[in-house]
Parts: sequence; structure tokens; C-alpha cells
Amino acid sequence: MDFAFTPKVEALRERLLGFMNEHIYPNEERYDAELAANRAGGNPWQPLQVIEDLKPLARKAGLWNLFLPFSERVPEGLTNLEYAPLCEIMGRVPWAPEVFNCSAPDTGNMETLERYASESVKREWLDPLLAGEVRSAFAMTEPAVASSDATNIESRIERDGDHYVLNGRKWWTSGAGDPRCAVYIFMGKSNPDAGRHEQQSMIVVPAESPGITVVRPLNVLGYDDAPHGHCEVLFEDVRVPVSNMLLGEGRGFEIAQGRLGPGRIHHCMRALGVAERALELMCKRLNSRVAFGKPIAAQSVWHERIADFRCRIDMARLLTLKAAYMMDTVGNKIAKAEIAMIKVVAPNVACDVLDAAIQAHGGAGMCDDFPLAKLYAHSRTLRLADGPDEVHRSAIARLELGRHLAR
Amino acid sequence: MDFAFTPKVEALRERLLGFMNEHIYPNEERYDAELAANRAGGNPWQPLQVIEDLKPLARKAGLWNLFLPFSERVPEGLTNLEYAPLCEIMGRVPWAPEVFNCSAPDTGNMETLERYASESVKREWLDPLLAGEVRSAFAMTEPAVASSDATNIESRIERDGDHYVLNGRKWWTSGAGDPRCAVYIFMGKSNPDAGRHEQQSMIVVPAESPGITVVRPLNVLGYDDAPHGHCEVLFEDVRVPVSNMLLGEGRGFEIAQGRLGPGRIHHCMRALGVAERALELMCKRLNSRVAFGKPIAAQSVWHERIADFRCRIDMARLLTLKAAYMMDTVGNKIAKAEIAMIKVVAPNVACDVLDAAIQAHGGAGMCDDFPLAKLYAHSRTLRLADGPDEVHRSAIARLELGRHLAR
Amino acid sequence: MDFAFTPKVEALRERLLGFMNEHIYPNEERYDAELAANRAGGNPWQPLQVIEDLKPLARKAGLWNLFLPFSERVPEGLTNLEYAPLCEIMGRVPWAPEVFNCSAPDTGNMETLERYASESVKREWLDPLLAGEVRSAFAMTEPAVASSDATNIESRIERDGDHYVLNGRKWWTSGAGDPRCAVYIFMGKSNPDAGRHEQQSMIVVPAESPGITVVRPLNVLGYDDAPHGHCEVLFEDVRVPVSNMLLGEGRGFEIAQGRLGPGRIHHCMRALGVAERALELMCKRLNSRVAFGKPIAAQSVWHERIADFRCRIDMARLLTLKAAYMMDTVGNKIAKAEIAMIKVVAPNVACDVLDAAIQAHGGAGMCDDFPLAKLYAHSRTLRLADGPDEVHRSAIARLELGRHLAR
Amino acid sequence: MDFAFTPKVEALRERLLGFMNEHIYPNEERYDAELAANRAGGNPWQPLQVIEDLKPLARKAGLWNLFLPFSERVPEGLTNLEYAPLCEIMGRVPWAPEVFNCSAPDTGNMETLERYASESVKREWLDPLLAGEVRSAFAMTEPAVASSDATNIESRIERDGDHYVLNGRKWWTSGAGDPRCAVYIFMGKSNPDAGRHEQQSMIVVPAESPGITVVRPLNVLGYDDAPHGHCEVLFEDVRVPVSNMLLGEGRGFEIAQGRLGPGRIHHCMRALGVAERALELMCKRLNSRVAFGKPIAAQSVWHERIADFRCRIDMARLLTLKAAYMMDTVGNKIAKAEIAMIKVVAPNVACDVLDAAIQAHGGAGMCDDFPLAKLYAHSRTLRLADGPDEVHRSAIARLELGRHLAR
Repeated sequence: MDFAFTPKVEALRERLLGFMNEHIYPNEERYDAELAANRAGGNPWQPLQVIEDLKPLARKAGLWNLFLPFSERVPEGLTNLEYAPLCEIMGRVPWAPEVFNCSAPDTGNMETLERYASESVKREWLDPLLAGEVRSAFAMTEPAVASSDATNIESRIERDGDHYVLNGRKWWTSGAGDPRCAVYIFMGKSNPDAGRHEQQSMIVVPAESPGITVVRPLNVLGYDDAPHGHCEVLFEDVRVPVSNMLLGEGRGFEIAQGRLGPGRIHHCMRALGVAERALELMCKRLNSRVAFGKPIAAQSVWHERIADFRCRIDMARLLTLKAAYMMDTVGNKIAKAEIAMIKVVAPNVACDVLDAAIQAHGGAGMCDDFPLAKLYAHSRTLRLADGPDEVHRSAIARLELGRHLAR
Repeated sequence: MDFAFTPKVEALRERLLGFMNEHIYPNEERYDAELAANRAGGNPWQPLQVIEDLKPLARKAGLWNLFLPFSERVPEGLTNLEYAPLCEIMGRVPWAPEVFNCSAPDTGNMETLERYASESVKREWLDPLLAGEVRSAFAMTEPAVASSDATNIESRIERDGDHYVLNGRKWWTSGAGDPRCAVYIFMGKSNPDAGRHEQQSMIVVPAESPGITVVRPLNVLGYDDAPHGHCEVLFEDVRVPVSNMLLGEGRGFEIAQGRLGPGRIHHCMRALGVAERALELMCKRLNSRVAFGKPIAAQSVWHERIADFRCRIDMARLLTLKAAYMMDTVGNKIAKAEIAMIKVVAPNVACDVLDAAIQAHGGAGMCDDFPLAKLYAHSRTLRLADGPDEVHRSAIARLELGRHLAR
Repeated sequence: MDFAFTPKVEALRERLLGFMNEHIYPNEERYDAELAANRAGGNPWQPLQVIEDLKPLARKAGLWNLFLPFSERVPEGLTNLEYAPLCEIMGRVPWAPEVFNCSAPDTGNMETLERYASESVKREWLDPLLAGEVRSAFAMTEPAVASSDATNIESRIERDGDHYVLNGRKWWTSGAGDPRCAVYIFMGKSNPDAGRHEQQSMIVVPAESPGITVVRPLNVLGYDDAPHGHCEVLFEDVRVPVSNMLLGEGRGFEIAQGRLGPGRIHHCMRALGVAERALELMCKRLNSRVAFGKPIAAQSVWHERIADFRCRIDMARLLTLKAAYMMDTVGNKIAKAEIAMIKVVAPNVACDVLDAAIQAHGGAGMCDDFPLAKLYAHSRTLRLADGPDEVHRSAIARLELGRHLAR
Repeated sequence: MDFAFTPKVEALRERLLGFMNEHIYPNEERYDAELAANRAGGNPWQPLQVIEDLKPLARKAGLWNLFLPFSERVPEGLTNLEYAPLCEIMGRVPWAPEVFNCSAPDTGNMETLERYASESVKREWLDPLLAGEVRSAFAMTEPAVASSDATNIESRIERDGDHYVLNGRKWWTSGAGDPRCAVYIFMGKSNPDAGRHEQQSMIVVPAESPGITVVRPLNVLGYDDAPHGHCEVLFEDVRVPVSNMLLGEGRGFEIAQGRLGPGRIHHCMRALGVAERALELMCKRLNSRVAFGKPIAAQSVWHERIADFRCRIDMARLLTLKAAYMMDTVGNKIAKAEIAMIKVVAPNVACDVLDAAIQAHGGAGMCDDFPLAKLYAHSRTLRLADGPDEVHRSAIARLELGRHLAR
């Protein structure tokens, strides 16, 4: 369990830090301006040129698809432990991961396809995703039920000859707003009479299939996150070839277990980058402003907060590294407690640091003059996405209590 | 210190509850739709017809200008203690207070004019405000300095013959986005060589004065709060007659003390209404959803939260009533500790209940399918507006410590 | 709901404050010294002379039995609302309430006897208790079961002719260590086949009855609370005349409901006195010590804490007064939510203020050079006594959730 | 930064776990009984036979002096990283570390002597300490000043020929109550006119020197921690040979920096053992008790707490390992931020887990039927000992803020 950077990681890290300094931070204003211009022009749901301009540079720099484990298809792949410090750095700017083809939900979808799709499905959908030519979405959560309990999912996947017919209303389908979104992974009930955890399946659905309606984008606090978006999507009699089924009928839970580990830990790594950036902005602001005759940075009430955040961030990072190490060595299933733990810890740290950083900035923290408000909105969703805090805490506690049951 | 409702208040309360049920809640969708239509039409900065339709009904029902103390000008005026339960009810819907001509910042501005303006200024600006014909804004906070320490305010008010000349950049000037905004109260430094608390003045500024530029609306988290708005406003060589000066040169702090008491307590009363509504929505959601085989409402982790919120809301209300009673009986100055206390307590309760209610709603809580996200954004600003938590806590603590100094 | 002091209460308050200043605070050292001397002499379980000396003075001053409602037997009795500010003052010194014959568990026991005992039992046990001649204990909690759920109580009360025969092991029977303890009220299962809430009874048991063994005193953190004590008590075939049964067989729950209201609110009132004293000691200490070049009182981290505690104490007091008012006017049963709320709030405020006050005192706060450590130990028990926080929060939440159930 | 156990550590760990199971846990009752018998006999301030019986066994098992770095004198010494998991295990039982000659304050004193004493002082005092034949105490904190700022220390060390003359009143001198305490390390002001951080010295003082009075033991909450004790000690004209001066006049701060690192991290390691034990007891209790028809372990309110504690303990452990690794590799001075961080984090985790574990046990948690109450009392002192939380947080924050100062 060695958390020191290997020379390979150290080299990637330096290259990535350089790329951030050269290409990402200096383009933050351009990104905002381009999006604002699209919005003012009547359609914010368009790919942004700044991203498309930077992607080839990142690929050329060897900062591409780093999130995936090494394989024949992804020779540049890294272990989770190797990827962690890189992912954290990317997370400091919300749109940066896309530049490196490392952004959600594509990463989780690519990992799912890599593990569970047939070679022909891989060629059709995984390869263009790996090349950054298209994007994807994951359709699981439903408005009608408490989706935190995935057995509640009600969408139907029914066999009809060589096809499955899909029906259901999904929402919080992130990325469905992007015109480049070419493919969905869809979860639904294929075997309603099977055991509780064998009823669900996951299947690959081309975005242009007839019967799919992107009903509306949903806002997050006041943001619409264009051009990515989080959408309500209606599936009505959508027909998909049986060969698009992943792993096999009734194995959706099994995939979810495998899929959600990496997706969750990536969110946590990025959340740490967010927390670091928020703490940095907070310190700079406190250093620069004077009230009641002294710099606000001299107030011990802020010392308490800064110290607690420094502790919490460093501890969350160490726990994330431990979870990554375990995923790499003993597998996602055995690492499930650690994955659940960081899934609770990291987003909460990020939210709390951001809230305090906003407080330190006064009104400036609430608006987009600083990235804090937008980062807060995003980080707040992470306390719900991929399972709310409460569900993860319950899972952790049941494992702990089980260890102490009298035999 | 009798907190029971008098028959007069009880009658108003019943009338107000009836009005909310008949005219406010049923129009929430219409409000949103009208605003969305304006936005889609390219200009959300227009008065909404639903408000204008309801104002005459409220006035006719005697639910008008209740926030002001009784006076010849405002025979319908109430004490703070009488107004508190009514204001709380209005606060349950963000746009409701305007229907009753009880919305910020007009209330604070009207109270300031009523107390400190000359009769001619009152006739020009107070009377149309009391009639709900125009709106107003308060220009105090500045982007360049830590405005939590009001002595930092740098805008200049310079005498030039029969006029004052105003220069400065303000922001978070709420209401400046509304085309009906007809008048500003502006705070600036008129006497830079006077004692620390005698340098600032407040002056009345017609919104159409040359030299005023509404630079841009600022967003609150992702919301622009159109058509009200919170704006950056530039004042360049704005000329105002000397008779517009309130109370006298160098007395801006004195007014701020008087003004901020009522403004703050109104925010707190409304925040309690917000907290109650959030708790109600939370309970309903928890009652209605099932996860892992039982209603989420049966989970004791939610019992802990609900119980703590019920305690905190009820206690915050009692403290608000006490502060109101003291303002009515011993005056805003002696009640300053209590006003500071509720200014810290009430917005924090509201934010915390809202955060938990969002968590209880899952993704639905983050978007505008429920009012929680928007209420959160607004409530979060209250931990900064009219002084950040930290400044109020310091004031409370210094009073407490002073009581125990050895003599 | 008028929380202002009536002239009667104001007069009592002034007399009580005077008594505290003249007789209680100046005797704190004597109390400690006397107890230490008894302990050094080999037996701390003896009544302290300082208490016995002060009781006649308190009685003469009309500061006696104030906790009870007015009745023929207790003409000096007060309402809960009247008693609240007096009880809070007494609570500032742990042993003070006994001087005024207002100390637990006697107060709860006297109230129970007054309400539910026969006249002959009253003459035998209530009258000497009212006179402060004897003391009493309440035997409910059992070591073998989770007594937070009172239906778990397993002690047996079995009818045998004109007697009941009692068997069971109790603990946390406060006051059983005092040699003046003359009588127990005992809760046990008399009707095991009745409905869940009709199985238990309460019965009066003379302390000298054969079959009672005070097994041992239990410590609270490191304190034994001599000479009062909290004891494990064994009841083996203890015979009690049937006329000692309170209210009737199977009505123990009913009594518990009636009894626990006043007992709980008294604890809360005293807890507020404790919190005030802790805050006062904290402020004095912070004012008096210098570190890193300035008084610790100038550190804003302490401002945050002091301000939050001032808010929490004042709010807890208001809520306690509201609960008292409701108990006086609509009865303990309807006031059950409010009683549960203060039972959670007040001990937690006291514990938190004490913890911070200890931190402010450094090592001095951990030892008996200041009363903080001892007060902490006692206040911590209040989060468990008369029902743990969790049970009260669940009760509050179920009432709240019930209000929002769809019909 | 490899946190996996080396084979050497793994072997020691298994041996230590075996020793705990065979010799420590089974003797917890004997320890309590022996101490109780001594106390009942009139003198609890005597060495306990159980400890003396076990020490040779531990030494024979090679579980002796593990806390010290490897040196000629201590061939069994370990790095901090190696020692951490062992120290945590010892910490599960308050008196266990002494069995392994690894208990405070001897460990810190031995480390100080090893680093800074002359060879003759080492032979006189370090060797018998390493052999476990005598014990020692550290006299730094003073009742008269805020000792959290060590420049406040007022005791005097004055040169008089070949001796230094010591005067001052110390308290919280842990271990001074033990009759085996043979030597003090004393901190005082030798150079009052030097720079702020060059005024203090540390000197070795034989416990039998004339002029030393152990005034009284201080209690911690209600515990006296006999036979160890935390004492007030008066030094009046105590004469010590100049050769007993450590490192040199005016270098006390330098030693404090070196000394406090290891002492602090040992406290943190043990605190983690305490936290683990408390969590284990909590889970077992919750599993074993039924209330309101189901095991308390099924209540999700406890799930929340258990999960948060599991996260906090695991994270605190990782941070402690990181601090240990840094102390081993880059030295205590560069590791000062990490040492300060765990000094805040670990005791707070332990206190919070203990508080919840007490709550889970009901009354049983408050008394010595379980080790929770005593562990709480001890853990609470760690938030003050070696610097209160506030001082460490300020140090962490100043480092963080400094990193972001504009240049």
C-alpha cells in the first residue's frame, strides 16, 4: 500500500500540471464566454469549440483515457492508484476532464462496455468513445420511484423476437443534452419474476433509436449545465437488437456493482480537486481583504475552519488512495466498504469547503465571478448521485455491525 | 412578553392564510410559467402580470403594508410582534411578500424614508412605494472592499452647491433589475475626515438620474432572480439635490442601525416560513416513498433530523418573537443583541432544513420541480446579506464578554 | 403565553437570588470540604451538615417546595411557568435544590404521591417529604433490559393476599445511597397478560422493607455523587400492602406519563442554570488569560462559540417556558411534544457549553478546582435519564410525520 | 509511503495481539480489583502487582521499549511507522502500555534523555527507565498562566555556582503520584532577557531532591488515575547540578519541538486504539439489545453514526501513518503540520466515538461496568494536553494561509 508516486505517475503529473497551467486555466474565461454567446444566440446545447480545440492537444500530450485500466485496447491505461492524483488535478476545473476524455458519464460507460459488451458492440460504441468522437449517457434513475433502492427501478425491457423493447421514464440522465450523445446504457426490468437482484438488465441503446424523447433538461440549483445537461428522457417502445444486452439478462445488478465502483471513485478524486481549489481561493481571499482593522486571515475563526478542512481533505485523499489500492489489488467487490466510505466522505468535504469559501467571499462567492457557486451546485449533487449518503452509510454500518455479531 | 396572538392578529392571520390558499399557492405555477415565457421571449426583466393582478386583491383584503408601524401615513401598520406571524406566512412563497407590498428591499427603504426623510421626499418617493406603484433599491455593498465592515465603504458623496455628487461602484443592489425600480437609497462617504462612524451618509437617488448604469445582474448560485435581480450598479457623477440627504451628513451609520433592525427581522420571519415549508415538503416526501421495503419515513435517521429541525424552528421563532417584542418596547438599539442572534439563527435553520429536504427528495430536490433549490439559493444569501454570520457572532460575543469583565 | 415575570415571581426571584448570594455560593467550599472530610473519614454516605443548616433558612424565606402546583397541601405551590426561572437559578449549584426541597428525585416522587396516592399514603410519605425530613428514590431502570423502552421492564409485582410481592433488580436508583432515603416508588410488571401498556404498575415501598439490598453505588464518569448516589438495588420478595399501589394495577404507564413531564422539565430548567454558569465561567476565564500576546477573549474562534451558546441558551429557555406554559394550560399530555423537545435540547446545550468551558479553562477545567467537570458528568447523564435523546427525537418526529400523512 | 506492514511488524503485531488476548484483557478485572483493594485499604498510590507481574513476560516476549528508534542502547527500537500499529493495539487498555514500557510520560522522557542528555545522565536515569525499574514525570504546565503559549511559563531556573536553583509551581505533572517516580524533566525560564524563544530551558531533576512537594493529585472528571496521578508539584529552591541541563541553557523550546512530536503521535496512536475499542463495544451493545420490537442495531440513526465513525477512524489512522512516515523520513520539524493535524483529529475522534458508545450503553456507559467512561475522561484530556486543539489548528492554518500569500 505504497502511496508515493511512481516515476511514471510523477511524469504524467508534471505533464498534466503543465497542461492545466498552459491550456486549461487560461481558457476558463473563454469557455464561459463561448457558452454565454451560444446561450445569447438562443441555443446553449452545442459543443464548445474550446473543448474541441484542446482535445487533440491533450491526446498528443499522452493525457488521454488515463482513467481506464491497461488493456490491449487502452495501452495508455492506468491503475486506480496511479490515476487518482491525475484525476484530482483534472477535477479542479469542471470541464477539464472532457479535454482528457476522462469525464463522466463517459468514463463509467466506457468501462462498462470494455468489461461487459460483445466485441461488435465495442467496435460500434466503445471505439468512438475512446477516440472522443461521440459522447454517451447512462439511463438509470426514474422520477416515479426512490431509485436509491435500485430494485425499485420500473422501466421494462421485454424480449420480442430478435429485439428487446424498452419502455420507461428516466431522469437525471446526464449528458443527454449534448448533441454528440450517441449512445445510452439503459437499466430496466427484464425478468420481473426472478429474485430481487436478478430482475434488472443493462442494455446498449443507440441515441437515434425511434421512441426516445429527451423531454427536458433539469436544472441543478439554478444551473442547466449546458451543453452537457441532466435530462428527463422518455423511452417508448424503443427496439434494440438482443446482441446489445450486456453480460446477460438479469445481470444488471452485477454490472452496477462493477460499474459503480470506478465511477464513484472518480467522482471522489475530482471532488478532492474541487476541495483543494476552494480552500486555495478561500485562503487567497482571506489574505487579501481587511475588515475591522486587520486582514480577515488573522481571525482565528477562519483558522479553525482552514485547519479542519486541511485535515479533512488530506484524510479523504488518503482514504481514496486506499480504496483505489484495494480496487486494484483485491477488486471492487471486496473494496465495497472503502468505496462507500469515500463516496460519503469526499463529496461532503467538497461541499463544506465550498460553503465556507463562499462565506469567505461574501456576495462574490454566490455568483459566477468565482467558480465556487457552480462547483457547489455540482458537488451537492454528488451527495445524491450514485446513491445518497444515507444508503452508503447504512451499507458501511451493516458491515461493521456484522463483524460484531455474536456467533 | 405575551406571544399569544391578539384577536386582531388572529383575524389577520386567518385572512392571510385564506388568501395564500386561494390566491398564492394556486398561482405558483402561473408565476413560473409567466417568467419562463418572458425569458423564452428574450426578456425576463419585466413585471409579472400575476403579481399585478393579485396586489389589488391583497390591498382590498386589508393585507397591505403590514410591515410598518402604525402612523398617520400607515394606519394599517402593526408592531413587529404583530407582524411576525404574518410575515412568516408570506415567506413560504418567495414572491408572495410583493403581493402584500411587504417585500425587501422596499420594506426597509420605506421604513427608512418614513423615519428619516423630509416630508417632500416622502411625498415624492414614500407615497408611491406605499401604494405599490413603484419599487426601490438599496445601494450599499461594494465589490472592491469587505463591506461587512461598513466603514470600508468607499463610494463618495461630495457637496457641490445645492447638489451632492455621487461616485462609486455598488453591487448586490437587489431590485435594480426591475424596470419599476424608481429610486435608490445610496450609502457613501461624505465626510472622510470625520470619526470612523461619522463619515458615511445615506441619500435618496432617483433611478433615472444621469450617470447611473445598471452594469449587469449577478446570479445567486445559478439563479438570476429575474425580474427582481441583484445588480452591479455604477454611479458616475450622479447629481442629487441636497434635500435628498437623509437625516444629515455623516449620519449614515445611525440610519443603518435603525434601518437594519427591521430589515433583518423581516428576513428572519420569512426564513422561518421557508423552514416550515421545507420541513413540510420533507415529511410528505418521506411519507410517500418506499425504499428497502419500508417507507423512508420509518428510518430513524430521518427522525433525528426532523426532531432537531422541529426544535430549531420552534426555538428560532420564539427568539424572533422576543426580538420583535424588544424592538417594539425598548427599541432597536437595546434589542441589538437579539436582532444579531436571530440574524444568525434563522437563515442557518432555513438553510439546514432545506439541505436536508433536498436530500430527502433526491434529484428532485436539486431542480425546480420543487421550490427547495430556489429557496436554498435565496436562504444561503441571507447568511451574508445585512452582515455575514461571523460579524453578528462577534457582536453578540463582545456583548457577552463585556458583561463579565472584572471591574 | 406571557413570559414576563409576574410581580409574585419577580419577588421570589429576587429573594432567591439574594439567598444564593448569601447562603449558597459562599458555602460551596464548605460543602466540598465537608464531603471530603466524610470521605477521608471512611464514609461519604452521610447527610451534610451544610444542607441541614440551610434548609430551615430557605423554608423561613418562603423558598420551599416551590416546584409543586398550588394545592391545599402546598399553599406555596407555583405553576410550571412561575417555577421555571426559580428552578433555573437553583440549578446553578448542584446541591442547591435540596436546600429548597426542590431536588430530584424527591420532586417527581412528591408530585406522583400528591396526584396518585391515597390520603393515608400521603400522610405517611408525602408529608415528611414535603417537610424535608426524609428523602426518596425512584426504582425503574433495570440493568438487564433496554429500559428506554419501558415495556421491557421485567421486575415483577405479584398479588399475595393483602400484599404485593416485589422481585427485580433495578439500577440508577438515584438517592438510594442517602441514609435519609425512606421510601421508593417502584415500577414493575403486575399484569403480564394485559395489553402492552397496561402491564406495569407503580407502588410505594418503604425503604426499610425486608428484602431490599442496596447492592452498590454506581459512578458517573468518575464521580460517586455521594451522599446522594445512584445505586443498584435488589428487591427480593419484598412485601408491600396492597393499599400502597398507586392509582391501580396496570396503570404504571399512565403515571409515568404524568410523572415524567414535571420531572423532565425541572431537569431542563436546572440544565439552563448550569449552561449559564458555564458560559459565565468561560467568559471570565477567557477575559483573564493572555496567550500569544493578547487576551484569549479577543480570539474570534471563541466569539463564534460564545455567540452560538448565547443563542442556544436563550432559545432553549424560551422553549422551556413555552413547554411550561402548555403544561399549565393544556396539560402534560398535549404538551408531550414540547416536553420531549426540551428534554433533548436543554441537556445537550448544557453539555456543549460545559465542554467548551472546560476547553477554555485548560487542565483546570478537567479537575474540581472549577465546578465544570462535575457539572459535565451530571449533565451528560441527562441525555440518558428519563429516556435517551434518540427516543425523544423519534417521538417528536413521529408526531411531525403524522401531521403530513395523506388522508 | 508504503503503509503495508513489513514482515517484521506483522510478526510483532501477531505476538502483541496474542499477548493482549492472553495477558492483558483477562487481567482487566484483576487490575480494577487490586486498585480498589488498595483504595479501600487507604492508599491507592501504590504500584500494582499485576503490572509488575506482566512486565517480565512482555520483556521476554520482545515487546519492550518498541516506541524508541533503533540505537545502540535500544536495539529493539522501531521507526514511528513500524511502531504505529503496535501502539494502537496497546492503547486499547489504558494500563497496557506500561506493561510494555511504552507508557506516557516515560516514553517522551526517555526519548528526550536519549537525544539530549549527557552520557552520565543517561546512565543514571535513562538506563533504569529503559529497564522499567523506575518511572518519571514531565513538569511543564503551570496553574498561573495560559501554558498553551509556552512562552508564558514562569518557573525560574537560576544558576548558582555548579548548580541551578529551581522555583515554580507546576501542575498536571502526570505520573508524579507514582511512588516509583524517580526523576522529573523540568521546564523553566533560565534566560529571561533572551529572545522570546530562547528564554526557556529543560533540566533533569531527581525526584528526591529537597524542596520538591507533591501538593495534591488532580482529578480528571471524577477520576484520580491512581496510582499514576496528575499532580500539582511545588519546586522551592530545588538545587540540581549544572550537568543535568539538557542540550544547553535557553534551548528548552528546541527540545520541546523535538520531544513533543513523538509524544503527540503516540497519544494519537493510542487514541485510535481507544476509538476502535469503543466502536466495537458500541456495535456489540447495539446488536444485543432490543427496544420497540427490534434490535437497536437495526435503527438507521445508529447506522449513520457507525458509518461516520468507521470513516473517521480509518482516515485518522491513515493520517497518523503519514505523519509517522514523515517523521521517520524528513524529520519532526518538517512534519510539524501533519503532527499538529493528527493531534487535533485523533483525540476528537476518540472522544466522539466514546460519547456515542456511552449513549448506546445507556446508564451502563456512564459507570465503570464498561471501560467507556474512564476512557472518555482520559481522551478528553488529550484535547488539552500537549497544546489545546485551538493552538494546533491555528498553527495548521497559518501554514496554509502562508502558502497563498501574494508575493
